[in-house]
Amino acid sequence: MFGRIDHIGVAVADLDAAIPLYRDQLGMPLQHRETVTEQGVEAVLLGVGESHVELIAPLGPDTGVAKFLERNGPGLHHVAYGTDDIDAALAAVRDAGLRLIDEQPRVGIRGSRVAFLHPKATGGVLTELVQPAEGH
Amino acid sequence: MFGRIDHIGVAVADLDAAIPLYRDQLGMPLQHRETVTEQGVEAVLLGVGESHVELIAPLGPDTGVAKFLERNGPGLHHVAYGTDDIDAALAAVRDAGLRLIDEQPRVGIRGSRVAFLHPKATGGVLTELVQPAEGH
Repeated sequence: MFGRIDHIGVAVADLDAAIPLYRDQLGMPLQHRETVTEQGVEAVLLGVGESHVELIAPLGPDTGVAKFLERNGPGLHHVAYGTDDIDAALAAVRDAGLRLIDEQPRVGIRGSRVAFLHPKATGGVLTELVQPAEGH
Repeated sequence: MFGRIDHIGVAVADLDAAIPLYRDQLGMPLQHRETVTEQGVEAVLLGVGESHVELIAPLGPDTGVAKFLERNGPGLHHVAYGTDDIDAALAAVRDAGLRLIDEQPRVGIRGSRVAFLHPKATGGVLTELVQPAEGH
């Protein structure tokens, strides 16, 4: 069903303060930066082979990521599994009885199609399915 | 420096209770099971493309993972980046000024060589470097 770990999402308070760790100290190329208003974050993607680290910083205090940071501090926020057919993957996990946050895929970063599963259904791990846009 | 996200580590209270979610509902093949006494865990690896989900359950109440579960509940515990030369990668992150938990690689699951960076150096993300054994 899943071809790869597409990315891990890391919550940070300050994007520009966090980038040097990944880009300069861990040597991951910065590939993309985007404000994803619908998810309440500004995000950057850094490359690790065919996968990514996605750093996400909250756009405001009422966003989900701001609340995550208040509760947990910065750190691992979610994992995203990559698929070439998110409609089929979402139908499969729904048929397997997993509770969803997104009943239908929506547009994510860099033109991808994404859907989140409910962390109560996945052992406390916020889990995303992602079908990258063609060419990514 | 890193060729891939080798695995994400997910802390669980009960390994046998957690396996069906990943194997049956998310469709990831179970590839390996091992007690890693030095790290105080029993672990399984499930396949996602060339990467893995590593489920880890504590061997006893005084282990690091037991304390993690007490503090946070089950969920994302660490991320591991894969390299073909862990000695060079570890030297590079040390030279970049990152604080290490392991000054030298040690033996990890399935004959791999692993080293952990200090989460205070990596924005709250427990980060592992891993060089898989040949053939894995």
